[in-house]
Amino acid sequence: MKRIAILVSICLSATPVFSQTKKDITANEVIDRIKGNLGVPWKTPTVDTFKAGDPNAKVTGIATTMMATLDVLQRAAAKGDNLIITHEPTWYDHQDTTDQLPMKDDDPVVKEKRAFIEKNHLIIWRFHDHWHRNTRDGILDGQVHAMGWEKYQDPSNSHLFTIPEKTVGQIADELQKKLGIAVMRVVGDRKMKVTRVALSPGATGFRLESGALEIPGVQLLISGESREWETVEYVADAAAQGRQKALIMLSHVPSEQFGMDECAKWLRTFVTEVPVDFIPTKDPFAPETFPSHK
Amino acid sequence: MKRIAILVSICLSATPVFSQTKKDITANEVIDRIKGNLGVPWKTPTVDTFKAGDPNAKVTGIATTMMATLDVLQRAAAKGDNLIITHEPTWYDHQDTTDQLPMKDDDPVVKEKRAFIEKNHLIIWRFHDHWHRNTRDGILDGQVHAMGWEKYQDPSNSHLFTIPEKTVGQIADELQKKLGIAVMRVVGDRKMKVTRVALSPGATGFRLESGALEIPGVQLLISGESREWETVEYVADAAAQGRQKALIMLSHVPSEQFGMDECAKWLRTFVTEVPVDFIPTKDPFAPETFPSHK
Repeated sequence: MKRIAILVSICLSATPVFSQTKKDITANEVIDRIKGNLGVPWKTPTVDTFKAGDPNAKVTGIATTMMATLDVLQRAAAKGDNLIITHEPTWYDHQDTTDQLPMKDDDPVVKEKRAFIEKNHLIIWRFHDHWHRNTRDGILDGQVHAMGWEKYQDPSNSHLFTIPEKTVGQIADELQKKLGIAVMRVVGDRKMKVTRVALSPGATGFRLESGALEIPGVQLLISGESREWETVEYVADAAAQGRQKALIMLSHVPSEQFGMDECAKWLRTFVTEVPVDFIPTKDPFAPETFPSHK
Repeated sequence: MKRIAILVSICLSATPVFSQTKKDITANEVIDRIKGNLGVPWKTPTVDTFKAGDPNAKVTGIATTMMATLDVLQRAAAKGDNLIITHEPTWYDHQDTTDQLPMKDDDPVVKEKRAFIEKNHLIIWRFHDHWHRNTRDGILDGQVHAMGWEKYQDPSNSHLFTIPEKTVGQIADELQKKLGIAVMRVVGDRKMKVTRVALSPGATGFRLESGALEIPGVQLLISGESREWETVEYVADAAAQGRQKALIMLSHVPSEQFGMDECAKWLRTFVTEVPVDFIPTKDPFAPETFPSHK
């Protein structure tokens, strides 16, 4: 009883002390601190800009995420996080304009998402280019860590790995389980044994993906989202030629997601005023992402 | 015995008669005849051009296909077809240049494919833009026929359908079976009941896809290949808002494949000198496409 009383007393006194040392910080100040902590200079033009909200508003909490879907924003708001740092777009477009939508800003999905952002005083900032091009690519590091592949990574090229021999099918199954992926797509011979792998998360395009596949000895490329008339056809042809080449497409979200967990960990080392949460973006192809809403 | 003898005699006499009436036709002449039989004027610039081979060479047989993969070329050559009419690229790029590949024309996969084409005197011509923009979109018509959805098609908009009520999941399962698709991807509530569907085969992009989804009453978009940070995120948000919107992605090849069967049927109505075959492109995500090659 006495010990409980002491504990309660410590807890009660601890709370005000924390509040007293806690200082206000604005979204702009958080971003300035990010720029100051990066190992590379800030480079414009960049998509790493504010996408919604008031940059001068006080931050109550930070949520890092792969993609600022409405579901992520809802979960961030419920946690009390008002600054969302997202790797991928908010407005369904790399430049985050609504120009591609025929109804543009009057599109009902856009309008309702914007209304939710405004009602909850959310601030959205994108962290794409510079998180990739930091001294170490933060997205790649987070993914490699989630895969448990650090020990296989090439010292001279962080996108290349020499793994213990496994078949393409085994690697696909293991990664699907480990990264929690709903739908995997594999091109090539699933029974092919592989030791040399290139990892290219996200949607890096055929130029980079074919560059990885052209490296002699690389047997397997793991990508996020590749075009079916480019990389997919190329690997299909390579496999038809009997070459030791295969492709695993993880889907975009789970291929980069863990890089934003890495980002949250990094932010916590220099933003201490407010909590920093990593909010995973749900896999859009998982049935449980969209339960029956009648 | 007598009847068999007569039959044999007819068959023997039929062959030379066929050969005698058969006239030579060059690839260029086939393409000119295609241009003359289209219901729309020829418009340049277009990707509908020769991609390999000699346009003045004599055609021994025509193979229409969705994508001129090496596997398709091998099957065409084995049939004696030397003119391949493909809907999608040969060289892994919409413009069919090898500029995206770091090694360009020296890429080993490109070189070996080109060597196969040359050795077998194949001629490759792309039929993309004008087959889509013909009086009726030939790709769409072929797909709708394969799906058995002609009776549900809107008279005023051939991309819209009013189907008997089914859930998104039921539609996905039925199409997967009917079109022989290895990997289907669904975004949204699979239990949602649907009657109003938009069909946008291939990779038409977010502008057209969001336009279809903005149409009031359209509950389901069926596409081939959509970008995960564009259409996929948009539908995820719409579903999270409780809207009656869902997306089924069929994959690119099976979403347009049957339009090239339609093309073969159309060609046979005005090219009678040589056989016209439809050679299905194998689904790159089906394990049986790439049996173990040791």
